[in-house]
Amino acid sequence: MKIAVLGTGMVGETIGGKLVALGHEVKMGSRSANNEKAAAWVKKVGAKASQGTFADATAFGELIFNCTSGSGSLEALNAAGKENLKGKLLLDISNPLDFSKGMPPTLFVSNTDSLGEQIQRAFPELKVVKTLNTISANVMVDPARIPGEHAVFVSGNDADAKAQVKRLLTEWFGWKQIIDLGDITTSRGTESYLPLWLRLWGALGTPDFNIQIVKKG
Amino acid sequence: MKIAVLGTGMVGETIGGKLVALGHEVKMGSRSANNEKAAAWVKKVGAKASQGTFADATAFGELIFNCTSGSGSLEALNAAGKENLKGKLLLDISNPLDFSKGMPPTLFVSNTDSLGEQIQRAFPELKVVKTLNTISANVMVDPARIPGEHAVFVSGNDADAKAQVKRLLTEWFGWKQIIDLGDITTSRGTESYLPLWLRLWGALGTPDFNIQIVKKG
Repeated sequence: MKIAVLGTGMVGETIGGKLVALGHEVKMGSRSANNEKAAAWVKKVGAKASQGTFADATAFGELIFNCTSGSGSLEALNAAGKENLKGKLLLDISNPLDFSKGMPPTLFVSNTDSLGEQIQRAFPELKVVKTLNTISANVMVDPARIPGEHAVFVSGNDADAKAQVKRLLTEWFGWKQIIDLGDITTSRGTESYLPLWLRLWGALGTPDFNIQIVKKG
Repeated sequence: MKIAVLGTGMVGETIGGKLVALGHEVKMGSRSANNEKAAAWVKKVGAKASQGTFADATAFGELIFNCTSGSGSLEALNAAGKENLKGKLLLDISNPLDFSKGMPPTLFVSNTDSLGEQIQRAFPELKVVKTLNTISANVMVDPARIPGEHAVFVSGNDADAKAQVKRLLTEWFGWKQIIDLGDITTSRGTESYLPLWLRLWGALGTPDFNIQIVKKG
């Protein structure tokens, strides 16, 4: 499949690398073509990898991963272009983290709204599925690095799009405990889990963790 | 031990009932003495249970459980009185849920502050430990109703108070995975997990669930 990965950070590199390893053609998108990090990633990952602007990548991809930092997501998608996004499925991995006020970061949108909803509102013809935003990059593409079943969530308005994302998460990355929280407003739940996730990282001393949902049998 | 349970809702009833069953003397506090729900609880639970005002209960208790609704917590603690609270340990189970704007509730304090911090700031001589606020009442006092080990968190500024709370959670209720997130500012993490908890309740169809923290071995 032809896939766009928007963003050149650790999440984009990790997701993009895994997708290429699975045999997909991946174009990494960034603000400008020939971005230094994107070019280095292409060189490392090989022939099935390419790079370009956000618009180049989005026009290329049948499927889009939003791996940009939350503060840059709407700008990146605007640069990607409404026509290139129209009707496509976007896996939104971003989190609305605000690092401008020191550590740990706060959220620039929360409680009564979410970044997932902002993206869906800005691009009503895009099928936004919020997912994978509750774990570190290495865990996203390799849940088996942590023992047992543990959870990943999906939030979105389009049932078919969520079903497709669930299949991808299972078949490509090996996810087992996939929980459909409901429509895109449930992004508020996973995005506002980030403050707990950040404190857990501190308490556990590693980002290599996740939560398993356990319930009364 | 003599224990104050502030609040007559499901959390107060459940915690208070469990503490009496363990052999403790428990005084349930509410806005006015002879509150109907508190009186009914005392009648049900038996001789080791009693009730009174927030001030009565707090003066009685060597240890205090804040089981009031978040929107009423500061008012309840003001009614309890600074002198009655001074130097004591408060297990703060409240959450800053705002039901006034419909369901699901939003948070009336979040992101850059928390109810745990507000309580600690208002009563600097009280040893506030935020805990048990991430699970339903039945799970708080009986974690074994859900299979496996799963997590409860503690947040607070006083290391001895947190150590005491950890012992109580283990010995009284049977908690095994107890995670110290850090100082009272980490209440932001557990309180802002509530929007995810509420969505999980919807997705799972039961409040009888919890999260287990799993990490790379």
